[in-house]
Amino acid sequence: MAKLEQLAELVGGEVIGDYDLEISRVAPIDQAQQGDITFVANSKYLSQLAMCQASAVIVTPGTAVDGPSLIVCKNPYLAFAKILSFLQAPKLPVKGVMPGATVSESAEVDAAATIYSGCVVGDRVKIGAGTTLYPGVVVYADVSIGEDCVLHGHSIVREGCQLKNRVILQPAAVIGSDGFGFAPDGSSYYKIPQVGIVVLEDDVEIGACSCVDRAALGVTTIRRGTKLDNLVQIGHNVDLGEDCIIVSQSGIAGSTKIGNHCTFGGQSAAAGHIKIGDNVMIGARGGASSNVDPNQILSGVPLMPHKQWLRATMSLPKLPEMRKEMQKMKKRLDELETLLKENEK
Amino acid sequence: MAKLEQLAELVGGEVIGDYDLEISRVAPIDQAQQGDITFVANSKYLSQLAMCQASAVIVTPGTAVDGPSLIVCKNPYLAFAKILSFLQAPKLPVKGVMPGATVSESAEVDAAATIYSGCVVGDRVKIGAGTTLYPGVVVYADVSIGEDCVLHGHSIVREGCQLKNRVILQPAAVIGSDGFGFAPDGSSYYKIPQVGIVVLEDDVEIGACSCVDRAALGVTTIRRGTKLDNLVQIGHNVDLGEDCIIVSQSGIAGSTKIGNHCTFGGQSAAAGHIKIGDNVMIGARGGASSNVDPNQILSGVPLMPHKQWLRATMSLPKLPEMRKEMQKMKKRLDELETLLKENEK
Amino acid sequence: MAKLEQLAELVGGEVIGDYDLEISRVAPIDQAQQGDITFVANSKYLSQLAMCQASAVIVTPGTAVDGPSLIVCKNPYLAFAKILSFLQAPKLPVKGVMPGATVSESAEVDAAATIYSGCVVGDRVKIGAGTTLYPGVVVYADVSIGEDCVLHGHSIVREGCQLKNRVILQPAAVIGSDGFGFAPDGSSYYKIPQVGIVVLEDDVEIGACSCVDRAALGVTTIRRGTKLDNLVQIGHNVDLGEDCIIVSQSGIAGSTKIGNHCTFGGQSAAAGHIKIGDNVMIGARGGASSNVDPNQILSGVPLMPHKQWLRATMSLPKLPEMRKEMQKMKKRLDELETLLKENEK
Repeated sequence: MAKLEQLAELVGGEVIGDYDLEISRVAPIDQAQQGDITFVANSKYLSQLAMCQASAVIVTPGTAVDGPSLIVCKNPYLAFAKILSFLQAPKLPVKGVMPGATVSESAEVDAAATIYSGCVVGDRVKIGAGTTLYPGVVVYADVSIGEDCVLHGHSIVREGCQLKNRVILQPAAVIGSDGFGFAPDGSSYYKIPQVGIVVLEDDVEIGACSCVDRAALGVTTIRRGTKLDNLVQIGHNVDLGEDCIIVSQSGIAGSTKIGNHCTFGGQSAAAGHIKIGDNVMIGARGGASSNVDPNQILSGVPLMPHKQWLRATMSLPKLPEMRKEMQKMKKRLDELETLLKENEK
Repeated sequence: MAKLEQLAELVGGEVIGDYDLEISRVAPIDQAQQGDITFVANSKYLSQLAMCQASAVIVTPGTAVDGPSLIVCKNPYLAFAKILSFLQAPKLPVKGVMPGATVSESAEVDAAATIYSGCVVGDRVKIGAGTTLYPGVVVYADVSIGEDCVLHGHSIVREGCQLKNRVILQPAAVIGSDGFGFAPDGSSYYKIPQVGIVVLEDDVEIGACSCVDRAALGVTTIRRGTKLDNLVQIGHNVDLGEDCIIVSQSGIAGSTKIGNHCTFGGQSAAAGHIKIGDNVMIGARGGASSNVDPNQILSGVPLMPHKQWLRATMSLPKLPEMRKEMQKMKKRLDELETLLKENEK
Repeated sequence: MAKLEQLAELVGGEVIGDYDLEISRVAPIDQAQQGDITFVANSKYLSQLAMCQASAVIVTPGTAVDGPSLIVCKNPYLAFAKILSFLQAPKLPVKGVMPGATVSESAEVDAAATIYSGCVVGDRVKIGAGTTLYPGVVVYADVSIGEDCVLHGHSIVREGCQLKNRVILQPAAVIGSDGFGFAPDGSSYYKIPQVGIVVLEDDVEIGACSCVDRAALGVTTIRRGTKLDNLVQIGHNVDLGEDCIIVSQSGIAGSTKIGNHCTFGGQSAAAGHIKIGDNVMIGARGGASSNVDPNQILSGVPLMPHKQWLRATMSLPKLPEMRKEMQKMKKRLDELETLLKENEK
């Protein structure tokens, strides 16, 4: 529960209407009730406000709305996220090491951290203040985990890997699994030991059942602010830049270097040992098989400008028809040529 | 071990032959031995019966078979499944809360439930009669789990989610991971707290390492009888209908609504915020990028009728040849035009 | 730390230079320092040696290098892997059953095995000498695990499955999840109990969050030496041959039989109930939908020779242009035909 004025301050916005309005909940525009705040980030949804019961609405400057009180700010979607965090995000209590957790005597766990039952924390591990390990988290030896991290149940961090601050692991995220490296030895394969580590920088989030492989030698790095969705694969020795978004079921093969502010759509991929520049956006199912210059929106296999890909795929269903058409045209050409030859005689 | 008559009754079929025959095992037609029962669901496999040692066969009405006793019924495949369940499916004993499990004092676990060692059950969780949690299951606070559910090892259910009755989670299934939602804040991303839940209705099954994200606000719903294979991704706020089949490695993006009786083939996908009607079948690797009307069999990207897709993909390898052919035809056109102009002179 | 002579002996190579040189570490060519050994498997990297600080280099016979001492052998990459294993791979200590592990009284765990805290080992399980179960591993009843296996944290093996010797499970690998089998019963689905098992033969490795489904009846088999990357799906009753490589996010559907020495690229797939011969290589995203003869390199959907696929995909972006071109040609044909008809008059 908070007053509208307090929420406006939180998001750097201005109140138009009742400064003292008590807001209890954030709700989407089609479900909001009295006492709720909602938001309109896109003017095409403005008309829905007529039917909406919300007591307050977050809008962009210059938006005229009758009825509810307003918070006016530049980025209503961001404001919605911040107000939702403030009002409704679960607060994580500090509980220390709970009964049923197994923590090595040589581990250094900050007194302001929380280790739930069923966790196993290995030798010489360091865990910072404000960090929470939910039940069933496994941390191998020599791992360091910074402050205010959240490791959800069944996430696992293998030996020597490093998580900086405010890192979030969703359930069953795997950090530091062996990279997939084998040397052919006759007809069989000899396992190349993967003796490197993984570093997850500040504010990185790794989705459920996503896997970040440790480097063969050296480091697999995911840089500040990058977010991975569920079921994503990051190969060994990848260097993934800052503030990237990798949507579910995508895979980045080993040793590939990706710049800052890149986005990979769902089920997309990058081959190994390539370089992708900053600000590259790859559409769903797109596949980068060679180096990619910065500042592009690309799709498909091979990658092409997104708009060209849209046209190409729209043509795809027409292919059989095109083949038939070509057969017909060929026949017409044959007939014309025959006719002309006869005319010449 | 059961008498043939008893099995026939179980499946609503009729015996032709020895009512008192003792059947100990179900076996596929190519491996069946004496004492086994097998089935023929498709008449093209009937000829294999000549070589088969099975003591009994499940067949459709009107099928003539020499030798083994028969159970005649409309759906031999379903009858096979039911007899297999009856004869060979493992019976789950009721064991209560076993040593090495950690169950919150405020949790309500039915006396007829089984919680294996290594499980962690959070505050205020409710677990119904006949439900089994295999070793290593983690259940966060405020979860409710109905009757006769089976949660396999390492499956996890996060805070507040609801499993109705007879729900099955395969190992490492993840229910209630955070949806993938971020608000751009300058060049970085601000995490939108995901404060909704997941509801899995009666008879839902979730495959190993499949992830069902909790709603941002509200509910992610998987409706009665729907089955997910392994490594499937279900985004936040998805509403997945009844009796759907989602094959392995498919992904449904956030806020998409899917009707009843839909099937998604392996590695297929649906974009976010779209609506897919009832009885839609999408082939392997198909991708729905916009709304889909009911009662269709579709494949490809963009989706097209499955038969058209088959023809289009068969044309794909011919593309380079088509391009060459077009060059040739163009040349012939040039020559014809030149010739005609000369003739005109 | 080892002398160069000792390392040469290990890999069956010959020293040129200082036999007594002390080597402490293996490093990639661009990071190697004094005291390190590096390798050149491909002559195109030879020029980099001029800038390299490595004290020793592994090279192929006939390679002339100034400065560092050499180990000369046929397969420098394999030699690198073996030396890396010798110098830097973590040694697994034998620790027995550690406090906080739950092991059934009827399980037979070899005295030279290691079971970490948080593991749960079921009834009648057998675990061989030299095998390590990292924290959080769950093993259901009646499983047998051979010698020198490594089961990483949160990997899980369900009832009755068998792991032979030197099998490696990466974190959260799932062995023996139910196959995806349902019999339609009116508009709903009836679960077909999956009562078979999984057998992983010697030297098999299963990646993180990869799933190998148990057979409906009988056995799902992964044969000697085959390696699965992360997030791979293997359906029920698959028979996967020896020394295969299955790259991340690939899926093999049920009952498919794959020969020896096959390679599946990332995100590739095979349909169910098909047969793939020996020595087949399927490129990234390739999809086998019917039987495949041995000794081929294929890509795409439908599968085609890899080179043809490369040409076909290069043509794809040209499709819209081709369609326009065809329209133009058709118009020219129309005009020519009209002209000729007029000429005839």
